[in-house]
Amino acid sequence: MTLTLPDLAADAQVRADDRAHVFHSWSAQALIDPLPVASGEGSTFRDYAGNAYLDFSSQLVNLNLGHQHPDLVAAIQRQAGRLATIQPSMASDVRGELARRIAEVAPGDLDKVFFTNGGADANEYAVRMARAVTGRRKVLSMYRSYHGGTATAISLTGDPRRWPNEPSDGSVAHFFGPYPYRSSFHADSPEQETERSLAHLEQVIVLEGASTIAAIIIETIVGTNGVLVPPPGYLAGVRTLADKYGIVYIADEVMVGFGRVGEWFAVNHFDVVPDLITFAKGVNSGYVPLGGVVISQRIAEYFDTVAFAGGLTYSGHPLACAAGVATFEVFERDGILERVRDLGARVVEPRLREIAAVHPSVGEVRGLGLFWAIELVKDPATREPLVPFNASGADATPVAEVAAACKRAGVWPFTHFNRLHVAPPLIISEDELRRGLDVIDEALSLADARVG
Amino acid sequence: MTLTLPDLAADAQVRADDRAHVFHSWSAQALIDPLPVASGEGSTFRDYAGNAYLDFSSQLVNLNLGHQHPDLVAAIQRQAGRLATIQPSMASDVRGELARRIAEVAPGDLDKVFFTNGGADANEYAVRMARAVTGRRKVLSMYRSYHGGTATAISLTGDPRRWPNEPSDGSVAHFFGPYPYRSSFHADSPEQETERSLAHLEQVIVLEGASTIAAIIIETIVGTNGVLVPPPGYLAGVRTLADKYGIVYIADEVMVGFGRVGEWFAVNHFDVVPDLITFAKGVNSGYVPLGGVVISQRIAEYFDTVAFAGGLTYSGHPLACAAGVATFEVFERDGILERVRDLGARVVEPRLREIAAVHPSVGEVRGLGLFWAIELVKDPATREPLVPFNASGADATPVAEVAAACKRAGVWPFTHFNRLHVAPPLIISEDELRRGLDVIDEALSLADARVG
Repeated sequence: MTLTLPDLAADAQVRADDRAHVFHSWSAQALIDPLPVASGEGSTFRDYAGNAYLDFSSQLVNLNLGHQHPDLVAAIQRQAGRLATIQPSMASDVRGELARRIAEVAPGDLDKVFFTNGGADANEYAVRMARAVTGRRKVLSMYRSYHGGTATAISLTGDPRRWPNEPSDGSVAHFFGPYPYRSSFHADSPEQETERSLAHLEQVIVLEGASTIAAIIIETIVGTNGVLVPPPGYLAGVRTLADKYGIVYIADEVMVGFGRVGEWFAVNHFDVVPDLITFAKGVNSGYVPLGGVVISQRIAEYFDTVAFAGGLTYSGHPLACAAGVATFEVFERDGILERVRDLGARVVEPRLREIAAVHPSVGEVRGLGLFWAIELVKDPATREPLVPFNASGADATPVAEVAAACKRAGVWPFTHFNRLHVAPPLIISEDELRRGLDVIDEALSLADARVG
Repeated sequence: MTLTLPDLAADAQVRADDRAHVFHSWSAQALIDPLPVASGEGSTFRDYAGNAYLDFSSQLVNLNLGHQHPDLVAAIQRQAGRLATIQPSMASDVRGELARRIAEVAPGDLDKVFFTNGGADANEYAVRMARAVTGRRKVLSMYRSYHGGTATAISLTGDPRRWPNEPSDGSVAHFFGPYPYRSSFHADSPEQETERSLAHLEQVIVLEGASTIAAIIIETIVGTNGVLVPPPGYLAGVRTLADKYGIVYIADEVMVGFGRVGEWFAVNHFDVVPDLITFAKGVNSGYVPLGGVVISQRIAEYFDTVAFAGGLTYSGHPLACAAGVATFEVFERDGILERVRDLGARVVEPRLREIAAVHPSVGEVRGLGLFWAIELVKDPATREPLVPFNASGADATPVAEVAAACKRAGVWPFTHFNRLHVAPPLIISEDELRRGLDVIDEALSLADARVG
């Protein structure tokens, strides 16, 4: 199919169908104006007017290998021609191969995979495994977290998307995680933040009742809620507490797994072995819906003779798994993990530190690999956020106008509350990366004007 | 890729990867022996030994257009080459086109579609819409039902898969639906069953508190739990009760939508208009994970200015939607709905009535289109089921040996409790259909030997 842009007739048709018939996620339907997307290639997508956008959000931080990666496209086309789907109770070559590849790169003794359709159900089923194995019901999760939209997953979530959905799964309690820039523990250093946030977590465990707690679920690096990289020792401390109290430690790596921070799994960076890891997004860049749970031997063995009480029609979907196998091949052949570590350390971090130094509106930059946050403030001294927590409408304008300026300059950013995130495809070229950061640099002058 | 069967080396490799690394749905992992599947075409799939199986279960009743339908394969290959995915907040041509096609065939004023990854999350989000619109929390669902595996969906479920998962969503109450062959209401006729089951439902509404009830969710024809076709007037009566008490009526058509019973939506057969219809499976035969909720104007309008508190990364996935658009094209070009009605009425029903007449183990046959159940009994007079409710292991042998006999004769049946279901792909040839029914006829002699 040849695509000639601009194509305003196509644009009108797509808009008309969308507005008349498509109901969108997390939105008031009459207050949105979805941009029709005509095409994508590498780190860029285009609308029907022919405008090109450098995708600095990897869509929803899922497009780790970028738009229309030829190897993933070819793998999907090949598998579609071989065997698009087969039910989960049978065995499939690509499903088994992907499970084996994941087991090979997972830490410790995590070597079985339960496949799901996405991240939300991965978290649902991980919690279910923990509940079955421990015979306990309660789950601890962090304020400032996102774990998905279905009933248990949204209950785990520690951001405002949970509020209209309460109570869904009533057996969840929230605790505070480390966040050195805005410490809940009045800590003065990352070391103190680690120490105090672990003491807090242990207090919550004791006061909620260790004997009632099945699992602790933590985004290895908190994603949408702030690219919060845990300070040294925090996750190892969580592991120790989980062991001490017989609690299952679930690492939610839906957003940070599969290369986002230069590791197959982000826990590898911290040298920690959880009991369960959940994943989705980057496993196949979301080209076909896929998620899953990587399972330790101890937990898997429990289910050797006890039936696992969960399942879904598309578990281990062959088409989705074929795109996952191709992801492994590309990562290995093209050294994706190495390039993420290199670009993160050599290009992104120094450039963002420069940006932070010159823009008074930038309170902090933080991140790892190709996953960074720029936290915007009204006042660098008080650290008052540039927009209020959960701002919408006019209150959100100071950040929205920065995002709009980026888009006008051809960069599509990810924004959340008072932050811009930098999360481009892992295959982005160094030139594109530098260009995108230059655009953000320029756009931040709008935020600076709000300072003071 | 050329596939030469038998290929016992491949069989061994697939088994080895599967047993070492794949964790399967709803199973004790050491007690299963998943069959490696090498290929599929039309109504048939093959294992690596070269054995062919006529797929009388359409995998998990999702493969409505059969294995490797060339038009669906081509649509997936084409869309993979154009634009595999784009985030839900943007607009996509195939997403809008599929939503429009669905709106065109949906009953009444149902004309917007919220897309999900499968049936479970479709039901989760339909319930969420009902709760938001009504400001009420409780949902009524049937005993003998299946609505999916995630927390709210499994709570809605009225079969034993719910038991190990309680409590998940605590705001669910179960009621008895019509089941003339085993009436909970001591009814003597379908008409009486309708009248009494509606009176029961109204009692439950009153005693649970109409003002607390957001929704009633019903599989239009109960699927896995028995192919229970509602007697005349039942669903219209549900519609009336829902209106009387201001309750949202959700039709779960995950299994029966998209042609399974010769209609786009099974409610069309009963001339009833629900407020929400959930779907998955047949929308694209499960070639790419996809589900969704079709939404009435009244409910959609509520969310024009109030944000819908749900969403997912792969909502309206373009690759999945492209396979859905192709499904519409095939259905219309090949007259799929008409052939389902014809084969059901002209071939399946008379042949199953013959089978019922000659086999004492057959208590009842019932169904519609290409969706039928053969209910097996130990004693036709008392109607005692051939195996106990929720039988497993040795208790389940009398049905398992019938299924095994079918498989030996090259037919892969769907079994559940004391029933065999007939649910072949809708593109099955008349010869294949007759051959499969002949095999079942033959195998039922094993069940007859258990009678009396």
